[in-house]
Amino acid sequence: MNPANSVLLCDLYQLTMLQGYHDCAMEDTAVFEFFVRKLRPGRGFLMAAGLEQALEFLEQLRFAPEELEWLASTGRFSAAFLATLETLRFTGDVHAMPEGTVFFPNEPILRVTAPIAQAQLLETRLINLLNLQTLIASKAARSVLMAPDKLLVDFGLRRAHGAEAGLLAARASYLAGFTGTSTVLAGQQFGMPLFGTMAHSFIQAHDDESLAFEHFAHAQPDNVVLLIDTYDTEDAAHKVVTLAPRLAHAGIRIKGVRIDSGDLAEHARRVRTILDAGGLKDTIIFASGDLDEYALRDMLTAGAPVDGFGIGTRVDTSCDAPYLDCAYKLQEYAGKARRKRSEGKATWPGRKQVFRIHDAGGRMTGDVVTLESDTQPGEPLLIPVMRGGRRLPGPDLPAIRLHAANNLARLPEPLRQLQEPYAYRVEIAPALHELAAQVDRTTFPCHSD
Amino acid sequence: MNPANSVLLCDLYQLTMLQGYHDCAMEDTAVFEFFVRKLRPGRGFLMAAGLEQALEFLEQLRFAPEELEWLASTGRFSAAFLATLETLRFTGDVHAMPEGTVFFPNEPILRVTAPIAQAQLLETRLINLLNLQTLIASKAARSVLMAPDKLLVDFGLRRAHGAEAGLLAARASYLAGFTGTSTVLAGQQFGMPLFGTMAHSFIQAHDDESLAFEHFAHAQPDNVVLLIDTYDTEDAAHKVVTLAPRLAHAGIRIKGVRIDSGDLAEHARRVRTILDAGGLKDTIIFASGDLDEYALRDMLTAGAPVDGFGIGTRVDTSCDAPYLDCAYKLQEYAGKARRKRSEGKATWPGRKQVFRIHDAGGRMTGDVVTLESDTQPGEPLLIPVMRGGRRLPGPDLPAIRLHAANNLARLPEPLRQLQEPYAYRVEIAPALHELAAQVDRTTFPCHSD
Repeated sequence: MNPANSVLLCDLYQLTMLQGYHDCAMEDTAVFEFFVRKLRPGRGFLMAAGLEQALEFLEQLRFAPEELEWLASTGRFSAAFLATLETLRFTGDVHAMPEGTVFFPNEPILRVTAPIAQAQLLETRLINLLNLQTLIASKAARSVLMAPDKLLVDFGLRRAHGAEAGLLAARASYLAGFTGTSTVLAGQQFGMPLFGTMAHSFIQAHDDESLAFEHFAHAQPDNVVLLIDTYDTEDAAHKVVTLAPRLAHAGIRIKGVRIDSGDLAEHARRVRTILDAGGLKDTIIFASGDLDEYALRDMLTAGAPVDGFGIGTRVDTSCDAPYLDCAYKLQEYAGKARRKRSEGKATWPGRKQVFRIHDAGGRMTGDVVTLESDTQPGEPLLIPVMRGGRRLPGPDLPAIRLHAANNLARLPEPLRQLQEPYAYRVEIAPALHELAAQVDRTTFPCHSD
Repeated sequence: MNPANSVLLCDLYQLTMLQGYHDCAMEDTAVFEFFVRKLRPGRGFLMAAGLEQALEFLEQLRFAPEELEWLASTGRFSAAFLATLETLRFTGDVHAMPEGTVFFPNEPILRVTAPIAQAQLLETRLINLLNLQTLIASKAARSVLMAPDKLLVDFGLRRAHGAEAGLLAARASYLAGFTGTSTVLAGQQFGMPLFGTMAHSFIQAHDDESLAFEHFAHAQPDNVVLLIDTYDTEDAAHKVVTLAPRLAHAGIRIKGVRIDSGDLAEHARRVRTILDAGGLKDTIIFASGDLDEYALRDMLTAGAPVDGFGIGTRVDTSCDAPYLDCAYKLQEYAGKARRKRSEGKATWPGRKQVFRIHDAGGRMTGDVVTLESDTQPGEPLLIPVMRGGRRLPGPDLPAIRLHAANNLARLPEPLRQLQEPYAYRVEIAPALHELAAQVDRTTFPCHSD
């Protein structure tokens, strides 16, 4: 069994709470919302991602017989309760912002409406899936903004946190605007464009660098991108120039060279000069190694002649902000709005909607977070995506990618330029303030005993 | 199929290089080593982890028929080459430091000796697995050093980077010395102790906080840990005191309370006073929320009466250093030592061993990295773990955990106290310097054309 699909990929407290709901016959409808509490330093906006995998998870949610047997063996749960898990399926509704939508703190990007046991059970894995891809898409979008016309390729699988992180980071960076990935499985599973060059080991295994280049070119004649920094970058660039006519004779074109160490901008300038002087004006320069939006900005501002970037670790781990301060919180139960008031972590109660205002030029000017029932001007961002446990038709990956590009194009200019902190206006509507006050009045005066 | 087991979880360049090796009939034995180049700021040592999963990966490495069909459909590879992949298995040898071993930069923790195609193919996933668990074990070990006598429970699944990251972070933090995890699947798969309390939603779904406590206690009578910060922490502590005699009457003991927000140390002091005054001296206090080794040190130094900690996001993402600067590099091919000289990324050639010296008290005093053939005083850290593609008998998780504890106990005192940077002595032996110079002499004079 694929552990990623196991319903046991939850916290123990979900199961102990479910035992509790069962024992006191609490079966009413709960409304939970997923949102981010605040932005991490150096970030001005987020991009929603991971909905596709979250909905897949809800559709296939069930306890396998061997999982129920194992739960029984722990002695923690009653037989009557475990019997109810046999037939448990997700039968609820989900509203969400489409993947690729730009959003901000305190804006729910997903709402679950379902019997409380179901809605509670899925908490951890739902957060896990939305946190991961939203994290990566939000980071990757920044590189896209800094280098909109360049080839941006995800190289991050090796240092992503495990298999699923690598696979879904490829998807998330692609939907945010990357050109493709080097992760083969992402090509197979998501139909994403694949890119790859060669490793230093291929060069090292040969006694002669030029011979390694030539062997590789013949083995991959349609995809000749040669790694030139194994020993001496400029020396290797000269070897590429020398080799080119012999390959051309065999009908093979050297598509590009890759530089992976040293001062990438400076090497790129020197290599460009060598390639141009050698008649290889169409051979592109591809750079990799510790790249993210800041390195891209610096290199491109300095006019480095780089055509493409292999972007790995720093984006696939979102290294400067490796998690979202996100939560999945109960906002309504049995028709009554609910609210926690924990210090620094108070929530806004009720079923919410986010409305977005654009100016005449199509740029975003501000959002309003309010109750679903309190219609406001602007575009509502949360839409129905699942009804009665069944997914509604949604966009495919190319459509999501287009939606993301449209969202990035509509960002206020300071956010497009990564001028952060920038305070995008997110208003909490009076209707929400009023409901919160009302919940507090009914929760607090009477229950301290 | 479980994507985590797919051989396509690799970079495209592994497959294009394999096509190259195939076309020029390069089939000799290669030696690759995995090591970390340097420590990230604020870290003084690392703890090896992930070997178990890495060896599982090698044992089951194969191309499924549908994967080969898909590769053929891409048009990138020759039919003759793809035919060789049908029967490809890992048949090599692996040497490694046992999991739980403390190590330092430039020390290989794993060495693969195999035909070059096999050794090359596994590069990305091997790095991915060793990076993840080593990262988490190294971070978690620091909390263990700061709070050796406390209950330390992994709470990180929700913000770990995907399913595998959450599951393996539970394992890695446990082997480093955590007491257990809240991730149910880790309990099932690794036999780890499980811990769990309740979420705010359980409280919020009730109209009355005391009633929520009582319901939960009856549903989990052997595991009553009550979350008391949903509305007002001290007020809830009084409710717990009031409730205790009624529960005691039903034979139920309140094992603990959990505080998840605000100034945890200050709330713990106030709650301790309330519980003690109410006769609940044995009820423990459990704290959670944004914890890691620094928070633990600060709280315990300040004398906060906290008995256990739920440690999640910051450890499971290794948030202050979310990746290792690690590499898997070719050190020998066809009997000849190899070396890359890329700026800032040069490697030491040859098959290596690490020897560790301890003082009379058993504390580590220094390591020597040298060639395997160059025996030095001290304990050799790399041992055979796989021969001819088959695993040799290795330690189980409790034994690994004991080995890790022994390693932590042997750390020099400044590293035990997290006084970093602290320069632990790692010597590169003369034999390695000599071999590197010799490789440079043979690689460079002759091949610039």
